[in-house]
Amino acid sequence: MNVDEFRKHGHQIIDQIADYYENIESERILPETAPRDIFNSLESSPPQKGENFDDILRDFNNKIMPGLTHWQHPKFFAYFPSNTSFESLLGEFLTAALGPVTFSWQTSPAAAELEELTMNWLREILGLPDNFHGVIQDTASTATLVSLLTAREKYSNYAINNVGSAYSPNYRVYASSEVHSSIDKAVKIAGIGLRNLVKINTDSNFAMSAADLEAAIKKDLMSGKTPLAIIAAIGTTGSTAVDPLEEIAEIAYKYGIWLHVDAAYAGSALVLPEYRYLIKGIDKVDTFVMNPHKWLFTNFDCTAYFVKDKNALIKTFSMMPEYLKTAYDDKVNNYKDWGIQLGRRFRALKLWFVLRSFGVEGLQEKIRFHIELGKKFEEFVGSDNDLEILAPRYFNLVCFRLKSGQFPASELNNVNESFLKMINSTGSLFMTHTKLDGKYVLRFVIGKTYVTENNLHEAWQVIQEQKDLFLANPEMYCEM
Amino acid sequence: MNVDEFRKHGHQIIDQIADYYENIESERILPETAPRDIFNSLESSPPQKGENFDDILRDFNNKIMPGLTHWQHPKFFAYFPSNTSFESLLGEFLTAALGPVTFSWQTSPAAAELEELTMNWLREILGLPDNFHGVIQDTASTATLVSLLTAREKYSNYAINNVGSAYSPNYRVYASSEVHSSIDKAVKIAGIGLRNLVKINTDSNFAMSAADLEAAIKKDLMSGKTPLAIIAAIGTTGSTAVDPLEEIAEIAYKYGIWLHVDAAYAGSALVLPEYRYLIKGIDKVDTFVMNPHKWLFTNFDCTAYFVKDKNALIKTFSMMPEYLKTAYDDKVNNYKDWGIQLGRRFRALKLWFVLRSFGVEGLQEKIRFHIELGKKFEEFVGSDNDLEILAPRYFNLVCFRLKSGQFPASELNNVNESFLKMINSTGSLFMTHTKLDGKYVLRFVIGKTYVTENNLHEAWQVIQEQKDLFLANPEMYCEM
Repeated sequence: MNVDEFRKHGHQIIDQIADYYENIESERILPETAPRDIFNSLESSPPQKGENFDDILRDFNNKIMPGLTHWQHPKFFAYFPSNTSFESLLGEFLTAALGPVTFSWQTSPAAAELEELTMNWLREILGLPDNFHGVIQDTASTATLVSLLTAREKYSNYAINNVGSAYSPNYRVYASSEVHSSIDKAVKIAGIGLRNLVKINTDSNFAMSAADLEAAIKKDLMSGKTPLAIIAAIGTTGSTAVDPLEEIAEIAYKYGIWLHVDAAYAGSALVLPEYRYLIKGIDKVDTFVMNPHKWLFTNFDCTAYFVKDKNALIKTFSMMPEYLKTAYDDKVNNYKDWGIQLGRRFRALKLWFVLRSFGVEGLQEKIRFHIELGKKFEEFVGSDNDLEILAPRYFNLVCFRLKSGQFPASELNNVNESFLKMINSTGSLFMTHTKLDGKYVLRFVIGKTYVTENNLHEAWQVIQEQKDLFLANPEMYCEM
Repeated sequence: MNVDEFRKHGHQIIDQIADYYENIESERILPETAPRDIFNSLESSPPQKGENFDDILRDFNNKIMPGLTHWQHPKFFAYFPSNTSFESLLGEFLTAALGPVTFSWQTSPAAAELEELTMNWLREILGLPDNFHGVIQDTASTATLVSLLTAREKYSNYAINNVGSAYSPNYRVYASSEVHSSIDKAVKIAGIGLRNLVKINTDSNFAMSAADLEAAIKKDLMSGKTPLAIIAAIGTTGSTAVDPLEEIAEIAYKYGIWLHVDAAYAGSALVLPEYRYLIKGIDKVDTFVMNPHKWLFTNFDCTAYFVKDKNALIKTFSMMPEYLKTAYDDKVNNYKDWGIQLGRRFRALKLWFVLRSFGVEGLQEKIRFHIELGKKFEEFVGSDNDLEILAPRYFNLVCFRLKSGQFPASELNNVNESFLKMINSTGSLFMTHTKLDGKYVLRFVIGKTYVTENNLHEAWQVIQEQKDLFLANPEMYCEM
């Protein structure tokens, strides 16, 4: 393909993308495809001769598009949203086309300096302390691992990197039983061992019990174990529960333990001053992660990671082989030394586009609107005698289920699993589930960039219709 | 921004990108900017009100563009190339806009199945064994870490993930003294400890000495240490040296040691059957990594990672919290279980676009052409009495320097550092350096997607001109 053909097909792709967003509500959110359908519809071997781009695009439209789950559909209420916005897409297109690899300042000075600046902006927008240093990571999984590795090195006096964990103390990590699985994964990778991840009980709101945390630390100290790190969640994955940060931070400070805050999703709510009370104690936090690629309208991937002790981070990850040395290394940020990967995309650009296009007030307006919609949905559920809410709504996630009544309590999990399956199979909205206290709950997260109040009403309508059908004839839908 | 504005600005961005590629040779490759120049030119705080996209784009063009290093310039001969191609960009635009997060099959069936298919295609194109399973990672740094963690778990009978490394044997990892720093980084992160990374001597071609490898293993076994993994390089970063894989594989097999092949850059040369002899012994290899985002015309990031024992990989990384369970988990590939990150972009699409657009023959033609250009550059240097070649040319990287003559041998490193700085400051080409046997060498890698033979001649012309200036008056340019 030459540049003229690129120009032609580029315009064609822009129109296709714009058309897609214009008509996205006509898409089934979950595709009707069975495992291997798509795989089997495609050529099993690569072509010897190059193919025409029109043919490739036709196959994409006919064979791939029908098998996609439409994450940008406004009635995608599943998991957490992974939002695009038009502004961030334009930034991403430029990043891809310019294609700088931003491992050192020299490999693109503008990228390194815009990253520092944009992270400073974001720190200000979220109300984080001035002495936090920001860096963009790909995902919160990576950022949490980076935090735990930094703790491991700082607390071992940077010995494990050199001599290996075989000589390390019996480190312990603390997190509530509701924290995200990426914490378990990070504990595994860092060689700490899952059995040293102490899951602290939660209270009736699914937030960590600070008293239980302190008791666990004391017990470990008594038995010769070494508390290393606490992970506090601001917005758990199950129900967006908020751990009591101020109390946890006091405990971390008292015992000299590293404190990481996982605000991957709900961190975006901190653009609203009225939510800042949730991070009281933040000055005692060592690292903090939130994902602009979830609820801050910046397309995946873009994770904002903040660290107080920048030198500990760099000491943990810096590698300076001869072929990466530059004349500027003592004057600049070489972000290769701020994380795991050497190669890095120029992700700051799209975030800068978003922050400038929305402005602080624009971000606040949208986040407030989404929380308002969550509140409305909560009211809908609350006024429905067939449904019950299973967790407090902090932001824009509502956890609910069909409640007992015509069903034996022991069957409620199966009943709700079938109910969810029935709703999702309509293709007109998509929710996912979790279990809270062993109870199967439907999670409804309303926070897509372009969601409207009308979408909320449409979704509620579908839930009502499906519920009526289900309750009229449960054995037809239910695998009991 | 609404969809109509996106359509308008999208077309504008496509034209800007096409214009950029049309005129890219008029750009300075390395920008003339000092640390903090760009940072200080930008607003230090985010705007309260949203801004007009035209204003943002104007700032981008006036303030950011002049500070970029132009990685897509055909005369970027530095590091290794990180190539785009027009086809891959179109794929990346669609991926960004659709924005599926591809952690489970359910979260986008077409993405999961296209990833499996495209990795099968690539396996076939590279001549890798049929029993290798492919998965796309972000970078080779991550893939190498994934490999080492899988080895750690498989060889510890999956114990370290659970009990922690504190109880692990004294594991040892072997790699040549020329391997990439990402191997050192992975050894650190995995808790093995840098002092357990045994750097094996290289021969006069900078390839690992298999005899020294076996001797090191024997010595470790005698002293009660536990050999865990060997990393063999097909194309080192310094000089693209190729370790003797067949001999190394025999040793790995004989002692039951995990074997990872780092072919991050040079793996692309395997599209040419005449280079397949370099991977004789591949059937005894456990994992293999190469980067389509380097020399296979697929824009960053896109790393192809192949593993023989898929179950060991999944057993190492699988996490299945309630909120990620789906009805299909036993029938499909959930790629979240094939690596570190939970969230993943739909990277297979751009690679599929590239493989179809180029076809096998198109890829071969371009790779052969780049190697041919490398050979020509080698001939130019070889015929110049002021220069000498410091390492064998395997592919399209030539390592050379100004040779002794008018300079004392002890000053040659300084002389060449100054000479490189002088060449790069012209802005019309960009090379980087490394040290081989303690000698400072200039690395010239010719492999950009759209490089022409004319670009080679232009670059050689600049090098000649700068050399003549330098040699006429070395003390003027040289920091001796």
